[in-house]
Amino acid sequence: MDAFEAIFTRRSTRRMSSDLPPMELIEKVIEAGRAAPSGSNSQTTHFIVITKREVLTELTKLVQAEFAKMEVGPDTYVSLRNSITASKAGRYYFHYNAPVLIVTANRIGYGNALADSACALENMMIAANALDLGSCWINQLRWLTDNEAVRAYMEGLGLADNEYITGGPILG
Amino acid sequence: MDAFEAIFTRRSTRRMSSDLPPMELIEKVIEAGRAAPSGSNSQTTHFIVITKREVLTELTKLVQAEFAKMEVGPDTYVSLRNSITASKAGRYYFHYNAPVLIVTANRIGYGNALADSACALENMMIAANALDLGSCWINQLRWLTDNEAVRAYMEGLGLADNEYITGGPILG
Repeated sequence: MDAFEAIFTRRSTRRMSSDLPPMELIEKVIEAGRAAPSGSNSQTTHFIVITKREVLTELTKLVQAEFAKMEVGPDTYVSLRNSITASKAGRYYFHYNAPVLIVTANRIGYGNALADSACALENMMIAANALDLGSCWINQLRWLTDNEAVRAYMEGLGLADNEYITGGPILG
Repeated sequence: MDAFEAIFTRRSTRRMSSDLPPMELIEKVIEAGRAAPSGSNSQTTHFIVITKREVLTELTKLVQAEFAKMEVGPDTYVSLRNSITASKAGRYYFHYNAPVLIVTANRIGYGNALADSACALENMMIAANALDLGSCWINQLRWLTDNEAVRAYMEGLGLADNEYITGGPILG
C-alpha cells in the first residue's frame, strides 16, 4: 500500500474478528514499530506481544477488577471515566476482545519515553493498516501502570523493574 | 512510495539543503500529521509552520542565548547537555539550519498531549520520507517551553496561552 494511503485511511478500529492474524503479519507490524526514531537513538521501547487468549482473558478480568475499585471525579478524563463506569457494571473489555495486544513499555525516568513509544505505536498502526489489519491505541494499561496487581501481572509477562507501560496497540 | 519502504528507510536527517521545498510538499506533510489519531479524537495538536528565514534566524539566536544561560549537571540528558555546551560556545543551530521547522503544541494539562503530538510527528516524518524530504524530531523548544523569552517569541507566532510545545520536525 502507498505510504499516504496507509496514513490517510488508518482508522482506530474497535471491532475486529477474534481470529489470530498470521504471525508473519504481527512480526511485520512490530518491525515497523522498531524502525521508529528514538531520543539519541536509545531504542528502549519494549514490545510485549500477547496473543494467547487465556492471558488476554485473565488480563481483561484483572483490569476490570482494578478499574471497578476506582472512583470517578469531576475532572476524570472522559475515557478513564468510561473505563471505570463500565468496569463497575462488570462489562468492560479494555482491549475490545481483539486477538492481539502489544503492550509498549519504556524506561522510568527517561524524558523521551512516551514520545518514543508513541512514534513506535504510530508506525505499528500505519503498518497494520497497510497489511489490512485493524488497530487502535489502548491507553488503559498506561493508566494502570502503577497499579500493584496489574504491574505484578505484567512483570510476569516480561515488564522490567525499570520500565513503565506507555501504551500499545490492539491488532486484528 | 510503499508504506513499508517509507517506514523502514526513514532516517533522522540533520544535514539538508537550505532551499525551501515547494509549499505543496510541506502542506502534504502537515496533512499527514493531522491524520494521526488522538485521545478521544480530540485533535488538539497545533502545527506552527516556520518557513521565513529571518524568523528561523531570530529563533536560533534566542534559543542559543537561553541555553547559554543554563548549566550542565551530572544528570543532564545527553542531548540537552550538548545543546547547552554548544550554545555557550556560540555555535548552536538547534534546527540544523533546515529551511522548514514545524513546531507542534498541545493543551496544557491534557494527559495525551505528548502522545498525540508524537503520533502526528511520526506521520509527518514518514510522509516527508515518502516525498523524498529529510526530517528530524527537534526537541529543543519542548525543553524550553517554560522559558519566558522563548515562550513569548512563540506566542508571537501563534502559540496559545493554554498550550505548550511538544516538539516538532525540521524538513528539507
